Formats: sequence, C-alpha cells, structure tokens
Amino acid sequence: MLKTWFKGETNHVTKHPTDWLRSYCYCDACLNHDITSRDVISVHNQEVELHVVDYNAIEGNENTVQFKILKHLIESGICMIKNVPTVPEQILKVASMFGPVRSTLYGKGYDLGGDQGENRAFTTSELPFHQDSPYYETKPGAQLLHALRFDSCVTGGESLIIDMFRSAETLRRESPEHFRTLCEVPATFETIDLKRNEPCYLEHQKTHFAVDYFDKLVGVNWSPDHVLVPRIRSEDVNRYYAACRAFAKVLERKEGMLKFRLTTGDLIIFNNCRVAHGRTAIQSCGGKRHLQGTYVNMNDVKSKYMVLANKLGLNVTPPKVGNNSSF
Amino acid sequence: MLKTWFKGETNHVTKHPTDWLRSYCYCDACLNHDITSRDVISVHNQEVELHVVDYNAIEGNENTVQFKILKHLIESGICMIKNVPTVPEQILKVASMFGPVRSTLYGKGYDLGGDQGENRAFTTSELPFHQDSPYYETKPGAQLLHALRFDSCVTGGESLIIDMFRSAETLRRESPEHFRTLCEVPATFETIDLKRNEPCYLEHQKTHFAVDYFDKLVGVNWSPDHVLVPRIRSEDVNRYYAACRAFAKVLERKEGMLKFRLTTGDLIIFNNCRVAHGRTAIQSCGGKRHLQGTYVNMNDVKSKYMVLANKLGLNVTPPKVGNNSSF
Repeated sequence: MLKTWFKGETNHVTKHPTDWLRSYCYCDACLNHDITSRDVISVHNQEVELHVVDYNAIEGNENTVQFKILKHLIESGICMIKNVPTVPEQILKVASMFGPVRSTLYGKGYDLGGDQGENRAFTTSELPFHQDSPYYETKPGAQLLHALRFDSCVTGGESLIIDMFRSAETLRRESPEHFRTLCEVPATFETIDLKRNEPCYLEHQKTHFAVDYFDKLVGVNWSPDHVLVPRIRSEDVNRYYAACRAFAKVLERKEGMLKFRLTTGDLIIFNNCRVAHGRTAIQSCGGKRHLQGTYVNMNDVKSKYMVLANKLGLNVTPPKVGNNSSF
Repeated sequence: MLKTWFKGETNHVTKHPTDWLRSYCYCDACLNHDITSRDVISVHNQEVELHVVDYNAIEGNENTVQFKILKHLIESGICMIKNVPTVPEQILKVASMFGPVRSTLYGKGYDLGGDQGENRAFTTSELPFHQDSPYYETKPGAQLLHALRFDSCVTGGESLIIDMFRSAETLRRESPEHFRTLCEVPATFETIDLKRNEPCYLEHQKTHFAVDYFDKLVGVNWSPDHVLVPRIRSEDVNRYYAACRAFAKVLERKEGMLKFRLTTGDLIIFNNCRVAHGRTAIQSCGGKRHLQGTYVNMNDVKSKYMVLANKLGLNVTPPKVGNNSSF
C-alpha cells in the first residue's frame, strides 16, 4: 500500500494499492501492455461475430445478461437479442438498460416503416455501408434496431454489417499513404434540412480516420451520403479523393461481412463507432418490414459495462470502444 | 444557376445557385475568407462579455429573443437571462428552447444546494476555473445555471468566467512549444465512482488543446480535478507537466475575467467548450444559495441558432462554436 499526504484545510490520507501505482508505470513495456490489453477492437477480436441472447433470459438475471450483451457489443461489434416483445417503443426500454437514450434530429427514436422519405434509410432501396450521424461531434455509439414486424413474404431487406476498423487497418497495411491522408485531411459531414418539421443544421468537420497519440486507430467516420464538398486546401484535394476511392475499394471486398435477416421480434445492438451497416433492397410483395431504431452514446455504454462488471465481481479491463479514445 | 444531373433509377436535376459553387472554391483566398468569417471565437470577439436578456421578453417573441440569447452565447461566450421564474426544474424548460437536454451522470439536471458532497461543486469551497464533464467524448456545450435562491445575506459565491480560447492563444503566442505540447500529448480525463446511487465509469483520453487542419484552435479541455495520472510515454512526461504549468500561469493572470453575482431568478447560459467557470468561496451567514444546472450539446445549439436565423430571414454565417470543428 502506498500512502499519500496532501496538505489542505486538514491533513488528508489517501491509500493506493501498489498495483494501482504499477498500472501507471511509464515504461514502454507496461504502457504497451496496458494499451494492448484494452484494444479489443483491433487486436483481440478481428472478426465481427453475431452472438445471440434471448430477451427472456434477462428477467431475474438483469446484471448477468445485460453484461453479456454489452460484452458481445464491445468485443464482437454486435449482439442480437431474440424474442423482444413487439410493442412500439419497446426499443427505448431496451436501450435504457445500457445508458440514457441519445436524442438526435429524429428525436428519441425513429421508425423505419417504408412510408416516410426523409433520407435513403426510409426507402426500400439498397443501403450501402454507412455509419449513422457523423455530423454530430460525437456520433451515436450503440445503435439499436428492433423488428416490430418482418413478414416472411417480404424479400430482401437483409442486414449487412462490416468492421470498419478491420477495413481501415487493411488500408493502412496496403496503402499507408492513403491511410495517412484519411487521418490528416478532413471531411465535412452535414445534414441541413430547414424544411422538415424539426428543422436541423448539423455539420462537423473531422477526418475519416483518427489515430491516437500511440498511432493506434481510435476512430472511423464513413458515411458517404453525408459528406459535403470538402473544405480543404487545393493541394490536398486529389490525395483526399484518391484515398477515399482506395478505402471504398477495400470495403467493396466485404471482408468478414455479416449478412443476416431479422425476423419479427429480433433486436440488434451494434457499435456504430466500429462497424458500418447497410441493407439489401426490399421487395414488400404485399408484406411489411417495420423497424424502430434508437441510440445510446458509447461513453455511457462503456460506463455501464464497467459498472456491471463491478457488480458481478468480475475483473474487467476497461476496453477501447472506437470513440476516439484509447483510455 | 448550376444544374447537375445524376443518373439513378430516374434522371435527377439539382439546381444550385452560383454563389453556392463559389462558397466551395478551393483557392486560398476564398477558403481563408470562409474560415475567418466563421471564427467568431478567436477572431471577431476576443472579449467575453455579459449581455443581459429579460425572460419576460420571450413571450410572444420566441424566435427573436431566443436567437438573441444564442447570438450572445455564441459570440460572447455567455448570456444572462433575468427574471426567470424560480420554479424547480424551470431550467429544463429554458434549456429545451435551445436543444434536447443533455443527460450526464447527474441525470437531466443537477442541484447545487450546498448539502450534497459528490464533488467540489457541491461544497461551499472556492472553485477554481474548470470546464465541466471532459471525461465524455463530447463535453456539454451550453451550460445553464439558474439561481432559484441567492439570499442577500450570503457572502461570496460570485461567479467567475474566463475565455479559454483567449488564454490558449496567449500561450501559443508566448510559448509556442508549450502550446504544441498541449495539442500533442493527451491527458486522461476521468470520473469513476462505483459507490454512488448511479455508479459511473467515465474516462476519455484527449489533448488539452485541439487544432484543426488549418492549425486554428478548435477545442480546449481544462478540468484539473478530473485529470488522471497521464498515460503517455516517459519521454513526454516532463514537457507535458511543464506545458500544463505554463498554461495554469496564463490563467492565473485572469485576463478579461468576468466576475459577477447571481441574484434570485438569474439564469446564465455559457459555452462550456469555450469558457471555463469558477466561483469564490461561499459563507452562508444563515442564508441560502440554491442553483440548478443542466446542459445542451453545442451541435444542437448551433443547429437551433441557424434554424432561428432562417426563420427570421437573417443571413447568418454558421459559426465556429469551440466543439473541435471549423465547419
């Protein structure tokens, strides 16, 4: 044990275990060990995997099952919850287990019923890979989608999930100069619509990739529909577009892509900071595909994960979650 | 007018005014003009100023008065609203005018009554300059504080506001190497409390200063109570602490500091991304100082500002708001 004395209004004694002190060792070996152990995204779990949890298992085992869902979300990028009651706004109840529901320009939640047409997600067209809401300073971390109804006669509408961290690391390996460009030259993400019921003017200039002080990848922003004409120096325009094309080419390979079809009552929760999602085109064939969606910030998700681990007496390393932070 | 044709399922025509095209010119002159015109924080408005608006003016003039409040908030860093009804949670009503209320570990709002003791803000001690909640990926932008009661017999408790962007630019001018260090070497901000009613584990590693692609200052994070032992390479430890000390010295000069006393019914809204706040020690002398506080994200505040400008038919340049973005 280490004791420290501070001199304030009264003397004050703080006790720290020696392994706390050890955990802050500055030597390269300790620091690298610490960074690596937190890096579930890039190091420990290359494959995005679809684990499944039954909603009915939660009752009576809240802490254990919620922790399991978050462990899958954080380590595998996604988790599916089966048999979620098909009650409108049930998704808000599920989301609240993991943190405060994040309000966006769509409010606390949104409805994908196929009728509205504010953007491509509300149509039946194919949706290419994208991450949601990059025009916010912080894009939502955990994204939840709940199938209130997905008739078996509907064809298409399969969900697609791809690991952006893996694809970005592929680009770094194959074309380091393009990777560097996407870390240096920013994109301007925006959604401006002054005519909708709740008008919005959201823009945020940031790079497609972010590396931290240790040169580890800690953030990916990819959302082609929301990228504006870049506001950058003319000398960077060509290398910016070349790098974007190179990354788009890597994504076209669909390395490790998950493709699956939701059924009525399925709810997926995925890490919008880590993965991109898409969808094949929908042919309703007289049936209906009705989803509801909402978000929780990744700060709150990670906090909940650590709090649950503590409640369960588990010794868990605080993980890197893709939100531009290594710690 | 410029017409563009995209070829999709059907031909599609988009009309753009030529000044839209002009606004995306890549030449240095146009780009620099654009950046400068948005930079209300560092260029146009060096002084943080306390403008005052009367709450009763809002009724019947919502758009005009709300826009005025936001203009002061964005250009001057702070605005005071007088004569706000001293009803508990009235602050949530005021905050909702400017965007969705931001939930934090304190919930939708918090109470500074002098009784609770979760951190220094809940005591009567002096509070040194700090920005709130840096352990989130996005710290709250607009911070609101409402004096439900501030008895005249209470001494002390004056509010202090200082412009962090101005102080950071002073450091850049006087000690460019320290400024650069605070842009390069990250701090780990955290609040971990597994024993409170709503336990939390929040940490985020980021630099104290952030410059953008144009080398303009776009972010400042300063919150000494929430800075952990740095997790950085040993070779950077000395220059990190030297730079922190140098910046603390600049702050001690209190250049352009605002010092004022709230009276019952006063509500201040200030930009937590741009300014730091503090408070002198409180001696209750048998009286009471009871504040409530809450937050709105700066993305949403800027959006509301632009939406109101549009409703009022004003031609407003989308401003830089201190949230790590130039656009």
